[in-house]
Amino acid sequence: MPSLRPVLFIVSILLLALAAAMLIPAGVDGYHGNPDWRVFLASSGFTGVCGGLLFLATRCRLHGGLSLRQAFLLTPLSWCATAAFAAVPFQFCHFPDLSLNYANAFFETMSGLTTTGATVLVGLDATPEGILLWRALLQWLGGIGIVAVAIAVLPALRVGGMQLFRTESSDRSEKVLPRAQQIAKAIGGVYAGLTVLCGLCYWAAGMSAFEAVVHALTSLSTGGFSTSDSSFAHFENPVLHWLGTLFMLAGGLPFVLYVRTLTGQYDALWRDSQVRSLLAFLAVVILSLSVWLTWRSDYAFPDALRLVAFNVVSVVTTTGYALTDYSLWGNLAVAVFFGLTFIGGCTGSTSGGIKVFRFEVMAILLRTHFRHLLYPRGVFPRQYGNRVLDDDVLGSVIVFCALFFTAYSVLTIALMAFGLDFITSASASVTALANVGPGLGAVIGPSGTFAPLPDAAKWLLSFGMLLGRLELFTVLILFMPQFWRN
Amino acid sequence: MPSLRPVLFIVSILLLALAAAMLIPAGVDGYHGNPDWRVFLASSGFTGVCGGLLFLATRCRLHGGLSLRQAFLLTPLSWCATAAFAAVPFQFCHFPDLSLNYANAFFETMSGLTTTGATVLVGLDATPEGILLWRALLQWLGGIGIVAVAIAVLPALRVGGMQLFRTESSDRSEKVLPRAQQIAKAIGGVYAGLTVLCGLCYWAAGMSAFEAVVHALTSLSTGGFSTSDSSFAHFENPVLHWLGTLFMLAGGLPFVLYVRTLTGQYDALWRDSQVRSLLAFLAVVILSLSVWLTWRSDYAFPDALRLVAFNVVSVVTTTGYALTDYSLWGNLAVAVFFGLTFIGGCTGSTSGGIKVFRFEVMAILLRTHFRHLLYPRGVFPRQYGNRVLDDDVLGSVIVFCALFFTAYSVLTIALMAFGLDFITSASASVTALANVGPGLGAVIGPSGTFAPLPDAAKWLLSFGMLLGRLELFTVLILFMPQFWRN
Repeated sequence: MPSLRPVLFIVSILLLALAAAMLIPAGVDGYHGNPDWRVFLASSGFTGVCGGLLFLATRCRLHGGLSLRQAFLLTPLSWCATAAFAAVPFQFCHFPDLSLNYANAFFETMSGLTTTGATVLVGLDATPEGILLWRALLQWLGGIGIVAVAIAVLPALRVGGMQLFRTESSDRSEKVLPRAQQIAKAIGGVYAGLTVLCGLCYWAAGMSAFEAVVHALTSLSTGGFSTSDSSFAHFENPVLHWLGTLFMLAGGLPFVLYVRTLTGQYDALWRDSQVRSLLAFLAVVILSLSVWLTWRSDYAFPDALRLVAFNVVSVVTTTGYALTDYSLWGNLAVAVFFGLTFIGGCTGSTSGGIKVFRFEVMAILLRTHFRHLLYPRGVFPRQYGNRVLDDDVLGSVIVFCALFFTAYSVLTIALMAFGLDFITSASASVTALANVGPGLGAVIGPSGTFAPLPDAAKWLLSFGMLLGRLELFTVLILFMPQFWRN
Repeated sequence: MPSLRPVLFIVSILLLALAAAMLIPAGVDGYHGNPDWRVFLASSGFTGVCGGLLFLATRCRLHGGLSLRQAFLLTPLSWCATAAFAAVPFQFCHFPDLSLNYANAFFETMSGLTTTGATVLVGLDATPEGILLWRALLQWLGGIGIVAVAIAVLPALRVGGMQLFRTESSDRSEKVLPRAQQIAKAIGGVYAGLTVLCGLCYWAAGMSAFEAVVHALTSLSTGGFSTSDSSFAHFENPVLHWLGTLFMLAGGLPFVLYVRTLTGQYDALWRDSQVRSLLAFLAVVILSLSVWLTWRSDYAFPDALRLVAFNVVSVVTTTGYALTDYSLWGNLAVAVFFGLTFIGGCTGSTSGGIKVFRFEVMAILLRTHFRHLLYPRGVFPRQYGNRVLDDDVLGSVIVFCALFFTAYSVLTIALMAFGLDFITSASASVTALANVGPGLGAVIGPSGTFAPLPDAAKWLLSFGMLLGRLELFTVLILFMPQFWRN
């Protein structure tokens, strides 16, 4: 069994940071005179005391780094521990129309920290600022958290084919930035900078300052929590819709490429295979769906293009803002958006889903396989960019996809066992696993919420969000008996 | 481009055989005084003339065998050509309640030859014997056809990991039966023998002689066409239900193992990894679902067990007989049966779907991958039975699964574009690809038919059935530009 001490020590530091973060909504609520500031202050104190005690109990030096098993344990444990404490304010804050039990509070928090954006809240427009900001902050922190994990932890664990990005990021960026710590700082700076830029744009285009802050926090993190029940549809200005599309897309691209662009490698984004594939895919889907929608409905083409672009980018980057209830566009739209829910953005971004590079790897595998069927004695090297796809990467990608669909099937069947209908179950499980947010159907569709689901389904979906966010393996490996053996 | 001559020559022989087969329903209709005997006789003449002309035009010696490309071309072409001619009687026969256009006739025929069992016919109970027998004969011929292809052609083409069974069947059976032709004869004999045995059992348990013949032909071929709109529910005798379960299962096991058993290797079936996995899987699913159904409904356990066993075996072996409308058992049952539709029986049987050995290979891959994550320097050989799973087999299995789900998604989206609802599209596409038969939902569920679907959807589903029956690659490779180049 791996020693828990250094793992718990890092968790304690995260809890102390969380306690500090809770002071922000406390201050905002205090400024606006909302009585909820006491809830945030008390939660902060409680989290701080627990984190502090854990810190004192487990204090140790980390200079030896973590073992493989400790790293595997740390990732899901940090998300679970922070979610458990970050959920407290949701349970005790005063909502206009409802009160949340712990299952609902935990679901909302996990949905935030995994940047999913599925919500159990209604009456957001009348909800006090503190809790709205807390939801957005959770997504923003979860977003930078997953980028850090995807760059620093997962490649070393060789999870889901991400070893493909291990040597690449270290090889190439060593020329630009000498150390991992510096990359982390640079990425954090880019993330914060883009968020500020996004907030300023939203504000300039007509959002209130508070709305701009919340939506900037949840755009770059591809989270999708909003300040209104009608999500982005609350804002009627087309400029805001295009800005939203742009910044969701910005959140779905690999952050390390922004750093490279800023340090002089100006074509870094454009030369990246994942980015090109994602943009090409989006262009094809958006254009064909817009033409179809113009033909099928009363929309003029520019309006159809705007609505389709926003909704498609929202689902593919796994943000989950709703601008229109696309399920009203007919069965084809439902099917397309259901399919898009699986895709996801780029690795190294804040978005979830299967992710573009895995589709690229599978496409390469398919192509070489067909050639090999036709020319059994031919030799067809499998290349991704300028790197050879070895069996280790291929195996990881394949096992990831197989696990994703297995988890998806099990989750769907389990949800149906709780009495949910077919389309709700089938879309809830993928929207959770891919960290998108809204599902399909009358209950959890773009204009619905997850509130009517039974508590058991919410626990299950919370687990699904965690599973998807941490690329499956990182969570599932903890269920191997061998993991806990010496 | 491969030379078409020897390919068309074999197709011409198949057409001549088809023309001969059409004389059987002609005779039966003549015996019963149904005027349709003229339709069958005319169709037989037409098919015979076309086949004969093609025979004369392409006559050649085959002793050189076929090239790889010719073999790839032959398989889908034989199914399409025979389906095109075998559909003629459906268009011209006189049905009590309907008349079929060519799209419907072709759908019904392809559903027969691929042993799918999805039907566009209603009023079967009042339909003349000739056409009922013709449907059953198509499934029986399609069944032995696919067993022959799976043993003789697909392993040599290294399609979908079936090279795993290439050396095995030749290595081990060389001790028993010296030549491929002898294996083919032995398997044909076993198939015919089991069909006769099945028919006798059905007849002894209370079916009429005609019903027994039709159901025997469609049980062993895991086809599922029946003589009644209510399918197997037409027969109320529990003994018949258990016999049906037994013979469907018999059709879902590898036929080569029966031959080995008969030639003295008495534990051949029991020692086979695929057979054991299938039986274990069925036992777990049937027992748990029966317990659940007993608890949820008014059924006594023996009745629940009988109904569940029949329906589960019917779907997993991809037969598709309906005994009860399990969609009335609630959402969990719908989800489970939807999932079961993908599975399929054993390779080398008449059943379709993804097939048990591919799940076994994926499970082996998953297990070694998790171990490898935990012990990065460990060496974990991947073994299937007593054979090492090399990268060639693994790659083929993986690409098969990826293609299956891709084809499934594309087909589902296309069906929704034709206006079908979500559950109809999602279940129709998998029931076609896996050659099961009935889907889910109000239209194509166990108590419905495919008749109300638009013609375009029927053509698409006919293509899906062919794609699934021929293990995807064999059809899709024809769409590669390189295939047609020199």
